[in-house]
Amino acid sequence: MKSDKISNAVIKRLPRYRRYLHELDKKNVEKISSKEFSALIGYTASQIRQDLNNFGGFGQQGYGYSVKGLYNEISAILGLDQEYKLVLVGAGNLGQAIVNYTYYYKEGFKVSGIFDINPDIVGKKINDIEIKNYSELVEYVEKEKSDIGIICVGMKSAQEVADKLSFAGVKGIWNFAPVDIEVPNRVSLENVHLSDSLHSLAYHMNSNKDK
Amino acid sequence: MKSDKISNAVIKRLPRYRRYLHELDKKNVEKISSKEFSALIGYTASQIRQDLNNFGGFGQQGYGYSVKGLYNEISAILGLDQEYKLVLVGAGNLGQAIVNYTYYYKEGFKVSGIFDINPDIVGKKINDIEIKNYSELVEYVEKEKSDIGIICVGMKSAQEVADKLSFAGVKGIWNFAPVDIEVPNRVSLENVHLSDSLHSLAYHMNSNKDK
Repeated sequence: MKSDKISNAVIKRLPRYRRYLHELDKKNVEKISSKEFSALIGYTASQIRQDLNNFGGFGQQGYGYSVKGLYNEISAILGLDQEYKLVLVGAGNLGQAIVNYTYYYKEGFKVSGIFDINPDIVGKKINDIEIKNYSELVEYVEKEKSDIGIICVGMKSAQEVADKLSFAGVKGIWNFAPVDIEVPNRVSLENVHLSDSLHSLAYHMNSNKDK
Repeated sequence: MKSDKISNAVIKRLPRYRRYLHELDKKNVEKISSKEFSALIGYTASQIRQDLNNFGGFGQQGYGYSVKGLYNEISAILGLDQEYKLVLVGAGNLGQAIVNYTYYYKEGFKVSGIFDINPDIVGKKINDIEIKNYSELVEYVEKEKSDIGIICVGMKSAQEVADKLSFAGVKGIWNFAPVDIEVPNRVSLENVHLSDSLHSLAYHMNSNKDK
């Protein structure tokens, strides 16, 4: 595996390749050419060959890619061949939606701890998981060795929550607060900026109109 | 404005530039050099100059960028100098979170219609907006001339909802269902694939560990 050299742009495309391969596998498709894959996924065949060549690729001239082989390889590169323990901070609607989402999500991401500061909801349950007081967060993460912290609080509290999670030892933070937070180098950060996505949509709607 | 030639990669970065400019403006910062901006936003100064050069850029040697000027220019390019009417389909936790989010969102994105098929929640309200029956969607979008449809339903219903929204005449679809949907060319599509984002995080956590 030559994963050291894989660029960020390719990494961003891997989950999408993987989703399509999973669908193909469910339909018992065993192999696929870069041309067929291109028609399906919307990248050019040349882009696909170049991307998949980054990690061995399993491609054979005149045969195509092994659907299951490629799926497993991409899963391993993404680190999806292991389990992750997640804690979530901020049990509002968005937090609840995320818990529901990962709860049913059979991919090894398990939310085990949920935290909030609002006394009205501390003690209640989401999918059988009791909402704990935010003051217990650090102790919980240290004891359970949680891997990932999910931030679903408002923008004013996001950095403080990130600091607590980093201090307690998570290896990754999945941030939904509409603000850029800072984390130590040893912690990986992935932001979901909903407004950025909405702004991109507005741009494309307007440039579509000009055509 | 040379917006015709702006690449997708630059467009993806514009909302982030805009967010930082907004913060600077709130702090009464009037101008900023590409070097200072680089330290703040994390892109290289050369990347920033190249990006902003795409649309005039307002940069002046020895002066830097006008914070307010650049903010307004980026807002106009993104189409944020106008109002958008949004409808949302699927009023579960995620849908409710999105409505809460855009409701307080003073940027011209107003959710006016919310639709669901579940009789238990049809008639209830989210932020004073009554949840309507899904069967009324097309008529509502046609009458209100809604601009954007937000899809917060499960993966099995997402394509059908997208078809209905496109048929009814929306110009953009913001899709939160974990599936790739197809839309006519005249409709712009922006997907928020939460699992892709989580998979990227897992990758970065693992490559961080190897260092």
